[in-house]
Amino acid sequence: MELWYTEQHTDNVRFSIKVDKPLYTDQSEFQRIDVFHSKEFGNFFTLDGLMMVTEKDEFIYHDMIVHVPMATNPKIKNVLVIGAGDGGTVRELTRYSTIEKIDMVEIDKMVVDVCREYFPQTACKLDDPRVQLYFEDGLKFVRSKENTYDLIIVDSTDPFGPGEGLFTKEFYGNCYKALKEDGILVNQHESPYYQEYAKSMQRAHKRIRELFPVCRVYQAHIPSYPSGHWLFGFASKTYDPLSDIDDKAWNSLGLKTKYYNTEIHKGCFALPNYVLELLVNAGE
Amino acid sequence: MELWYTEQHTDNVRFSIKVDKPLYTDQSEFQRIDVFHSKEFGNFFTLDGLMMVTEKDEFIYHDMIVHVPMATNPKIKNVLVIGAGDGGTVRELTRYSTIEKIDMVEIDKMVVDVCREYFPQTACKLDDPRVQLYFEDGLKFVRSKENTYDLIIVDSTDPFGPGEGLFTKEFYGNCYKALKEDGILVNQHESPYYQEYAKSMQRAHKRIRELFPVCRVYQAHIPSYPSGHWLFGFASKTYDPLSDIDDKAWNSLGLKTKYYNTEIHKGCFALPNYVLELLVNAGE
Repeated sequence: MELWYTEQHTDNVRFSIKVDKPLYTDQSEFQRIDVFHSKEFGNFFTLDGLMMVTEKDEFIYHDMIVHVPMATNPKIKNVLVIGAGDGGTVRELTRYSTIEKIDMVEIDKMVVDVCREYFPQTACKLDDPRVQLYFEDGLKFVRSKENTYDLIIVDSTDPFGPGEGLFTKEFYGNCYKALKEDGILVNQHESPYYQEYAKSMQRAHKRIRELFPVCRVYQAHIPSYPSGHWLFGFASKTYDPLSDIDDKAWNSLGLKTKYYNTEIHKGCFALPNYVLELLVNAGE
Repeated sequence: MELWYTEQHTDNVRFSIKVDKPLYTDQSEFQRIDVFHSKEFGNFFTLDGLMMVTEKDEFIYHDMIVHVPMATNPKIKNVLVIGAGDGGTVRELTRYSTIEKIDMVEIDKMVVDVCREYFPQTACKLDDPRVQLYFEDGLKFVRSKENTYDLIIVDSTDPFGPGEGLFTKEFYGNCYKALKEDGILVNQHESPYYQEYAKSMQRAHKRIRELFPVCRVYQAHIPSYPSGHWLFGFASKTYDPLSDIDDKAWNSLGLKTKYYNTEIHKGCFALPNYVLELLVNAGE
């Protein structure tokens, strides 16, 4: 027999991966979690059937969500990570000895438990002494925080199901308040290519733009995500990722990365005209 | 019933598009040609089952294969286009009033005939008076040319079947000879992500690098191609696409483009570390 995992990128587009072996399946309090092994992507897991992390290309997402803000402000010390149950974002953050504290708030403990078992590649730094895990709703957690973090990373699922609250104006407003006066907010920002994703991207952008003086969007090639064209949001109270990046400082750290480099940093903010148009028209 | 077109991106990865209506199918002297209509991508056509052009995203490929060299050297007058039976590359070239002559060499006349019928969006400028069509093998055509073209664009299929000769050292060597002393060669350069494509990319890069003093690779997000992460090669005898681009001159032309802009031009040459490594190790 053959076993294929299929994700519907739209009603009319499917992406399928041949599965060698299903490794895990369960329903948590919040969502269905499945883990598979495949030849092409290694282990991968899905939440409610949607692709989250593959061993083959998780480095792209995690490089881009972490190193872009860290190269922009190397003085970041206190970080809040929301979502990110696989641990990949925390793994990249812990490579900076200058970071003192990482609060990670994941609503679904079962995701973390599953990733500890099946994704040691991403979950390997969740026990770093600087990391504090909270199994709570990120939306509620951030509400009580004020002037606390240098960086907030929203590493959420898509805005359907448990991730929905992390795309609201209330949430971004609370992030603003929880950030110090030179704080940076980075979020996974969906994709511009298929209409449903593009709408989510526009909504998120409109809301963030109303709150933060600096509001930019950058892109990466993530082939296991719908369309492979994925976006991230960079918002801040002062720092600009293009004028404030300190190439030399970041390169002198000697971090080995498989995707990110300081040229990519500068290049990834250059967006295609059709994406720029979608962003300008967001919420009109 | 449901009808789905499926392309195997690897033995273990499939990309499928729901087909509203098959529009055409035939076997030419060289390859099988199929045209379909779909909700998500509009009309699209395949050669030997591999995706070539979709109405939804052909603008990305054609913008990037044409405007990058044209913005680097606005004095380009004589152009040779190899392959490109759909006409999209010629369409973009004809937007430059400064171009005087375009030789287009497509081995398979049936591709052009089919595209004239089903893809007026791309084939619309094939009758421009500056365009001369040759239905010949590009490999043979270019052999007899010397010091003739300012720009050669190799808009070929993948290096399996009829496109194979367009990835050989002999072919690139003949392109070098056919170019004037400040000539530019741009070619579709496959993808770095799945192994078989990455090998083709490495082979092409190694061969071009041995011939041209300037040899760079740039990338674009083309969701209908395998992995969505697609590369182009830029090789030349003198021009460097980053130091020689004249933003102001290009922007003053007032060309409306849906993907390309001069910021993308500068950003698209910044490649991920894993791609840089594949290129450095090409042919070792």
